Amino acid sequence: MSDGTAEIRVRPLTGLPEVLPGDDLASALAALAPLAEGDILAVSQKVVSKQEGRIVSLDEVVPGPRAAKVAVELDRDPRLVELILSESVNVVRTDAARGILITETHHGFICANAGIDSSNVPGSNAVVLLPRDPDGSARRLRAGIGEACGVRPGVVISDSFGRAWRLGQAEVAIGCAGINPLDDWRGRTDSEGRELAATVIATADQIAGAADLGRDKTSRTPAVLIQGLGHLVTQNDGPGCRDQIRPAHEDLFR
Amino acid sequence: MSDGTAEIRVRPLTGLPEVLPGDDLASALAALAPLAEGDILAVSQKVVSKQEGRIVSLDEVVPGPRAAKVAVELDRDPRLVELILSESVNVVRTDAARGILITETHHGFICANAGIDSSNVPGSNAVVLLPRDPDGSARRLRAGIGEACGVRPGVVISDSFGRAWRLGQAEVAIGCAGINPLDDWRGRTDSEGRELAATVIATADQIAGAADLGRDKTSRTPAVLIQGLGHLVTQNDGPGCRDQIRPAHEDLFR
Repeated sequence: MSDGTAEIRVRPLTGLPEVLPGDDLASALAALAPLAEGDILAVSQKVVSKQEGRIVSLDEVVPGPRAAKVAVELDRDPRLVELILSESVNVVRTDAARGILITETHHGFICANAGIDSSNVPGSNAVVLLPRDPDGSARRLRAGIGEACGVRPGVVISDSFGRAWRLGQAEVAIGCAGINPLDDWRGRTDSEGRELAATVIATADQIAGAADLGRDKTSRTPAVLIQGLGHLVTQNDGPGCRDQIRPAHEDLFR
Repeated sequence: MSDGTAEIRVRPLTGLPEVLPGDDLASALAALAPLAEGDILAVSQKVVSKQEGRIVSLDEVVPGPRAAKVAVELDRDPRLVELILSESVNVVRTDAARGILITETHHGFICANAGIDSSNVPGSNAVVLLPRDPDGSARRLRAGIGEACGVRPGVVISDSFGRAWRLGQAEVAIGCAGINPLDDWRGRTDSEGRELAATVIATADQIAGAADLGRDKTSRTPAVLIQGLGHLVTQNDGPGCRDQIRPAHEDLFR
């Protein structure tokens, strides 16, 4: 009785070489697998950041007085705190006992450590910052892949963020192109003909999460191919993930 | 260059008849598709609630004084507010201007309206409450499916919740059996041999989100089959989703 036409396939793509700043990441991604119209490529933030040169050695960071103060309070490396604050517009929460620093990044994301990460980075003391403009990164990758292979897939750039209320990190979309981050069903009707009350679906985040299920955290599988969601892929690049940031005045949890 | 062995397949299963209280839901689910060891079945909360008789007509609800007061403040139906409060242990946030009522349910979930929903419910004024014990529901479904077809799949019961900071609803797991809701990678090492800092992955939630991508919100596709994640399916039912509720004293956003 199943509807075989609607199957979604999620396939981690291996074989991407270590990415260096300035590499042609779009061509490298396009070479991983044959792409078809309607495909979506989920790319991990880290590989995009590396390509964009968003790697900083803590040895080169001089903490300012504010970072030094916060670092003492949280018992954290003042150089890392300096970077976190410089990537942020706001400190949202701190927890001195656990050394937690949750900020609002200049993109508008609310996450621990402004999304700065030190795992899977070659070189001691090197850390990776989020791309400056992840939606722009997604648009550039989409265009570059289109030039390389003739197909412009939907592109989602993702990272794993912690959440309020629930343990564990979930992969979320921080940039996208060619898919709408939100699928708005308001105004449509349910199976009883009643209007759906408030259903806006976080499509890009769910794609990021689905992609992550296939990924081995210890290996280099920075790209995951999602097939079967062609109805979500748009001709235009669309608004990007910036569109799914909850405006501060509507957010009850800042 | 892709690793074809790791493909995940997500397939919405159609053909489930309208579910009534007391129906043999496990057998009905087992009949939707042939199941194999390592399969995961994601089942929408609403169909489980219906089977468990968690449907209430607002016409039968008499609001108490507290509900009456909150209902006036929020300009909401006092009967629905009575139900929301009776399903909750705590009011977490209200927003009078937008009629928002976010509570902590007796399960420990933090969500709008205690997860009570009125879409896709037959009968005017009928609303559906969350299952009393969604992990127990998942375990019963798993056992029943095992009896019906000889295979005990991983079972995830899911609902769509709003989130802090990000617009849109994402499908999350509210109950599970046969999969661990959290995949703990702490202590393992990254590709450079360094210990992974703090990576606990919200596996059950990501499965719920992946399943939702294949679901048409206006039709009855309450079950989604996920194949290719057999390494996440356990012999034991495991701790259930209760295990992924962030303890209140560790939660910075209540």
